[in-house]
Amino acid sequence: MTQTFCDRLFQRVAPVWNAYLEHPFVKGIGTGTLEHAKFRHYMRQDYVYLIEYSRLFAIGAAKSDDLETMTLFANLLSGTMNFEMGLHRTYAAKFGISNEDLENTAPSSTVTAYTSYMLQEAYKGGVENTAAAVLACAWSYNFIGKELATWKGALDHEFYGPWVQTYSGDEFSKLAKTCIDLVNRLAQGMPERKLKEMEEIFVKTSYFEYMFWDMAVEESMWPCKMV
Amino acid sequence: MTQTFCDRLFQRVAPVWNAYLEHPFVKGIGTGTLEHAKFRHYMRQDYVYLIEYSRLFAIGAAKSDDLETMTLFANLLSGTMNFEMGLHRTYAAKFGISNEDLENTAPSSTVTAYTSYMLQEAYKGGVENTAAAVLACAWSYNFIGKELATWKGALDHEFYGPWVQTYSGDEFSKLAKTCIDLVNRLAQGMPERKLKEMEEIFVKTSYFEYMFWDMAVEESMWPCKMV
Amino acid sequence: MTQTFCDRLFQRVAPVWNAYLEHPFVKGIGTGTLEHAKFRHYMRQDYVYLIEYSRLFAIGAAKSDDLETMTLFANLLSGTMNFEMGLHRTYAAKFGISNEDLENTAPSSTVTAYTSYMLQEAYKGGVENTAAAVLACAWSYNFIGKELATWKGALDHEFYGPWVQTYSGDEFSKLAKTCIDLVNRLAQGMPERKLKEMEEIFVKTSYFEYMFWDMAVEESMWPCKMV
Amino acid sequence: MTQTFCDRLFQRVAPVWNAYLEHPFVKGIGTGTLEHAKFRHYMRQDYVYLIEYSRLFAIGAAKSDDLETMTLFANLLSGTMNFEMGLHRTYAAKFGISNEDLENTAPSSTVTAYTSYMLQEAYKGGVENTAAAVLACAWSYNFIGKELATWKGALDHEFYGPWVQTYSGDEFSKLAKTCIDLVNRLAQGMPERKLKEMEEIFVKTSYFEYMFWDMAVEESMWPCKMV
Repeated sequence: MTQTFCDRLFQRVAPVWNAYLEHPFVKGIGTGTLEHAKFRHYMRQDYVYLIEYSRLFAIGAAKSDDLETMTLFANLLSGTMNFEMGLHRTYAAKFGISNEDLENTAPSSTVTAYTSYMLQEAYKGGVENTAAAVLACAWSYNFIGKELATWKGALDHEFYGPWVQTYSGDEFSKLAKTCIDLVNRLAQGMPERKLKEMEEIFVKTSYFEYMFWDMAVEESMWPCKMV
Repeated sequence: MTQTFCDRLFQRVAPVWNAYLEHPFVKGIGTGTLEHAKFRHYMRQDYVYLIEYSRLFAIGAAKSDDLETMTLFANLLSGTMNFEMGLHRTYAAKFGISNEDLENTAPSSTVTAYTSYMLQEAYKGGVENTAAAVLACAWSYNFIGKELATWKGALDHEFYGPWVQTYSGDEFSKLAKTCIDLVNRLAQGMPERKLKEMEEIFVKTSYFEYMFWDMAVEESMWPCKMV
Repeated sequence: MTQTFCDRLFQRVAPVWNAYLEHPFVKGIGTGTLEHAKFRHYMRQDYVYLIEYSRLFAIGAAKSDDLETMTLFANLLSGTMNFEMGLHRTYAAKFGISNEDLENTAPSSTVTAYTSYMLQEAYKGGVENTAAAVLACAWSYNFIGKELATWKGALDHEFYGPWVQTYSGDEFSKLAKTCIDLVNRLAQGMPERKLKEMEEIFVKTSYFEYMFWDMAVEESMWPCKMV
Repeated sequence: MTQTFCDRLFQRVAPVWNAYLEHPFVKGIGTGTLEHAKFRHYMRQDYVYLIEYSRLFAIGAAKSDDLETMTLFANLLSGTMNFEMGLHRTYAAKFGISNEDLENTAPSSTVTAYTSYMLQEAYKGGVENTAAAVLACAWSYNFIGKELATWKGALDHEFYGPWVQTYSGDEFSKLAKTCIDLVNRLAQGMPERKLKEMEEIFVKTSYFEYMFWDMAVEESMWPCKMV
């Protein structure tokens, strides 16, 4: 069987992705022992992240070379704005976070860095760069979700069960597959220097995913006096 | 009553918009005497236009400063991609234009010019420029639709009745109103030099609307040898 | 000898470019019989064009993947802003066009269409699209200049001689060569669908060049009532 | 005397900027006691920074609303590409860093975050956002340079003297002044919501400047396993 471009990407970042599974925040979700305060910080920052991540889909739609890709990005965008953000608000309420709270969340340095990086790459290059930027988040959440789903009790945990269910579930697995297929399609026939560019985006977003888990467990905002 | 920014815009372009109502293509729709061949050319080019116009909504979503505006653009985008383009395909079939025909349409110089102008302004400036670029098309179609709806028999014409119904109808009137409100909101408090920039975009897109009617009636593609 | 990508491009547009040489405006420059009024219209519109064309270089610099390409675009930008526009002002003065005149020129529909098209393609895609957008203008002016330079008396004409000298001269030939080499380099190894995209940009800008000559000879602004 | 917009900006970030002066890296330059290894890390990362910072000038030129602003950005771009980077290379050589070394430097997470943030804001908004993004770096380096210049021996230090001379000197002070004047000009008459947006950019880039000093003193790359 031929190796796809995404197979190559996975092999490259495997050490980083495996480190996610060892991360105290991720393990805390899987074992159900994560402090709620840390998860609340994560939920708030993830809400901000989701808005900026949605802008990526918008840029993807604007830059698509064919109607199929354009419709795919448009549907990801409206799906996120109209449904996923609603789910997020409902789940956040379970932890005592109000909608107002979510709306007023200031982005941490890590969220700012991560989303800025993706958006800048998306603006700079062709649609293949947008697709490459979208991939790590969708795919690695599914990777983590499917692993945690095998942990005893993780799917049924009162608080963190829904998280594991969502990211290991069929719908999210389909979303991850959609992103993988898209990147494979857009990488087709590209010269090595373009593949390297896409790989670089995938590697850096994988690093930023790790930093996101760090930010969550440390409940950090900015590493300097804020004004 | 206070004058809104869109009132100012309307006063500026009134002579151009009134000229639409005198245009042979528009009059041909209203009287029902328009040659089908010309309308078919229009339908094909309008399909291409719609795809590029949708990209504008995508850029608007990417550049929005608040969640409300972002959701508005996201919904315009998915609404256009998933519903309007379907309606367009159904209506085109009535004139013997297949989906394949629509997909394979090459954009004329006028459509290329018009959509490139809007997209370039959208990329260049803040979200208020995208909103200004979107306005003339939505609003002037409603303006024309409502005028033609008062013409005897226009709403019931076998072929052109649906066109008049669509653009004079409640749903499209609401869409036009949404765009007007958006532009008024984004123009609020802006210094005169920014208002002038937005006005310029509105004026130029109004010109391009006129050129679109010209292109339609002349069934023109490019004013030079094509290769 | 292997065919370069720019060889392929040239073969594709040869019929359009040969039509430039038959165009009354271009022939009028070569024979020296062109009405000054027409040339004045051209000069003013070309000044506006040059500003927007310079923005292309800026986008190219912003989007470059390596320092060499970035420096190349940065130098084209500053060269145009600091020298070429000065030469343009000096030459325009010979035809009685003041700097103020140039600054106050409103862009015609053709200039708006042409520059918007290039800028929109540049914003939308990777740096290779910017390079493809830049090419037709630089290369075709050199193509025309070198042809007219062989016409009897064209180089020495009191009014149009400097135009023929500039665009057939070594410096401009070098500029055209720089753009050709850049496009060949960025096209290297690209899959056919990307080459088609670049070719499409080259073809459309070649059409717009023709329309520019039309605009010049017709002294046209916008094909509708202006407000 | 009226307060300018930049006066407002300065008051807002004063606590952060004053913290720069207390930062061990900055103090190490001023007292001349900074470890060379740390400065070498800084020099390499600053080189990468400079390239991305230059892209900001390019975007500014592409988005300028008038010829004066466009020329200003074009000159900043070519000045940086052709002179500043050369100076940087010469100064780096003093610390045993070769050109090849500079060219092969991989950006740290902090440089990636900082430059991505600026570029993303520049792509997203109008030219005023680009100007706001450019400001903190230019101005705060001058602020630091002028303070350190008053420290005993700082200007004459064998290794760090040239750094203090450059950023406290007339040429750099003029550059900082140019950026301040530009931001004041583009802020003129803007509604409070736009001023807040520009202020936000200035605050965040001020935070990132602090994080840059942290990165330098810690000689850090990415806070996760790199692949």
